Amino acid sequence: MFEEKISELSLSTSPSFIRAILKATESKDIISFAGGLPNPISFPKKELKESTNRVIDNYGSKVFQYSQTAGLVELREYIANHLSKTQGMKVTYEDIIITTGSQQALDLIGKVLIDPGDTIILEEPGYLGAIQAFSQYKPDMCAISLENDGMDMNKLESKLKTSNAKFIYVVPNFQNPSGLTYSQEKRDNLMALVQKYNCILVEDDPYGDLKFEGNPYGYISKTDYAGSILLGTFSKTVTPGMRIGYMVIRDAELRLRINTAKEAADLHSNIFSQYILWDYLTNNDISKHISRIRMLYQKQCNTMLSSMETFFRENTKFTRPEGGMFIWVTLPENVVAMDLFEITKEKNVVFVPGNPFYVDGRNANTMRLNYTNSDEEIIVEGIKRLSKSMKELCDV
Amino acid sequence: MFEEKISELSLSTSPSFIRAILKATESKDIISFAGGLPNPISFPKKELKESTNRVIDNYGSKVFQYSQTAGLVELREYIANHLSKTQGMKVTYEDIIITTGSQQALDLIGKVLIDPGDTIILEEPGYLGAIQAFSQYKPDMCAISLENDGMDMNKLESKLKTSNAKFIYVVPNFQNPSGLTYSQEKRDNLMALVQKYNCILVEDDPYGDLKFEGNPYGYISKTDYAGSILLGTFSKTVTPGMRIGYMVIRDAELRLRINTAKEAADLHSNIFSQYILWDYLTNNDISKHISRIRMLYQKQCNTMLSSMETFFRENTKFTRPEGGMFIWVTLPENVVAMDLFEITKEKNVVFVPGNPFYVDGRNANTMRLNYTNSDEEIIVEGIKRLSKSMKELCDV
Repeated sequence: MFEEKISELSLSTSPSFIRAILKATESKDIISFAGGLPNPISFPKKELKESTNRVIDNYGSKVFQYSQTAGLVELREYIANHLSKTQGMKVTYEDIIITTGSQQALDLIGKVLIDPGDTIILEEPGYLGAIQAFSQYKPDMCAISLENDGMDMNKLESKLKTSNAKFIYVVPNFQNPSGLTYSQEKRDNLMALVQKYNCILVEDDPYGDLKFEGNPYGYISKTDYAGSILLGTFSKTVTPGMRIGYMVIRDAELRLRINTAKEAADLHSNIFSQYILWDYLTNNDISKHISRIRMLYQKQCNTMLSSMETFFRENTKFTRPEGGMFIWVTLPENVVAMDLFEITKEKNVVFVPGNPFYVDGRNANTMRLNYTNSDEEIIVEGIKRLSKSMKELCDV
Repeated sequence: MFEEKISELSLSTSPSFIRAILKATESKDIISFAGGLPNPISFPKKELKESTNRVIDNYGSKVFQYSQTAGLVELREYIANHLSKTQGMKVTYEDIIITTGSQQALDLIGKVLIDPGDTIILEEPGYLGAIQAFSQYKPDMCAISLENDGMDMNKLESKLKTSNAKFIYVVPNFQNPSGLTYSQEKRDNLMALVQKYNCILVEDDPYGDLKFEGNPYGYISKTDYAGSILLGTFSKTVTPGMRIGYMVIRDAELRLRINTAKEAADLHSNIFSQYILWDYLTNNDISKHISRIRMLYQKQCNTMLSSMETFFRENTKFTRPEGGMFIWVTLPENVVAMDLFEITKEKNVVFVPGNPFYVDGRNANTMRLNYTNSDEEIIVEGIKRLSKSMKELCDV
């Protein structure tokens, strides 16, 4: 009835295909490799409960009152110290803005940086939530293909030469959806190119802490380059339900713009949960907690990989992530992942066909599998059923 | 350094003057009539703590996991039942979307409905947070002056006749900043005009429950008119720190658009706090709680009114709110509220000069006073100092 009143901005935004799948598959009998959900056994329920009681007792009304747009100073100080300790970054709490999950950071970046028609550069395949957030502001989205060690740097530089791109958006660690990780060489190359072309770098790191072995990789944006924006989140290591992410922004003008946009977007993020998270982080051994999650996910990942080796045909390829939550599968060229999805759904197994991860929306022969939210037994059973569907589809 | 990269959308957004004042006046010695903060003694700390422990015990991991964009079904059902009981509205939980405070609802409405240059209609003086959120999307903001009983209906109809306005935004109960309330006649007239011109009505009601005497007023949008959007919040009655508001949207297409925009904005609002709020609302006598807040605010309001009668000069006028949080003061025509602000600040009293409540940003002779966040003694002292400043300014 009111269709003619809908804005161009809204018309250029599609609902997320993944969330549609998730909603359609809430039934318990379904094996879901579709979402990007943490394993619920990883949530520190007891400790978060203790922290909640403690902050209400210690801070009373302050945890329930209106607060500052940039977020709780104590939590921002914790984050700044952590980045300084683990990454050697020279940052203070004033460089940090707390966001309502990293999704809000993506929306704010789109709002503050994109005018219709502006070029922005993303990875291909790229993170769906970023494509969705940015596409609202009608940029010319240029996708640069991912190689096994990161973005194709030659293609990136040719694009930078000709396009005056506003920013480059990357997920260098265990990327969503591909599970791929940038080599140190590509990280260095990327920073050099960003500086050479005076471009803004948006480095999104939801998964960096979930590296199965050894120390986390260094951030591309750990230098003092003013045009870097780093996005972090507590959704994968503590709880996604509280929706607490953060942005590290070096340039004062950019920071002010993002802060003003956030003020207009929701005044500030939930301060009650910011107090709880801060208390939890300062009163518990978070690195021990994270190492337990890593071991859990590594086992689940290995189970999925070995099941695929056992049951998938040789002409099906997949990535071997060093961490994070996803494996990326490439089917034989003539197989359409969407067809496979339809057949597999009948067997009560779901995954995400590759289509929404390409900005051109192609009908892809790729798919994303999540291993973090299913027990090992379930993973084996799901991969078995999936391989049966592949057989059925290919033998037709 | 990156100024040239900032989007038009961001350039059209100013930081909130009020939040700047709030930040500058966090010192304890300052008497602040500037904010719109609830009195912290009104927060049900003990009960919210009980609810938190209960939902963690009863629902475990679900309160910490990712969730649906539209919000917790149980909370939406509670809201739908409440609106049906108290206002006779025919709504179900499916008509309701939970937002990260009402501020997010305003941003989503701007995003989904405004194309640059579109006419939208607001009250004059109007709510600053709405002006800020809408202005991002570069509408032609048309402000219709408020009379003692609501918008000037003649001016409104002439505007509707000639403008093809996208929507009308109103705060009918104890409006922010004026404290004024719409008469039943104007409510009826407004609904008739909205339907006649096929316009969308955005009815924002943060304060309706805070009516000092008698039952709350009926909503303008309690009819079945598909083009109405009602905004509600728990910020003034339970806690603002959890940032939980809601939208009631009748039109399915509009609802889908808003939901998709919310998905891109923050995936969903904090689900942990949604569980807590829902548990709190269903296990406590909320109407008893609200009536205590009303009595508290009525006393504080009366104290401010009688102090102004005692200390202000006769040529200074002010509204007499029936509820809510604000009194609107009109100074003699030649007095500039901003000058008064500067003098009064020196006496450690702050308020909000009228300027930011006008879309033309005029240098106004009006100001907004908040009475909810100061004890009665403080109110008397603050009004005394304010009247001294007025004398100094006028006697120059």
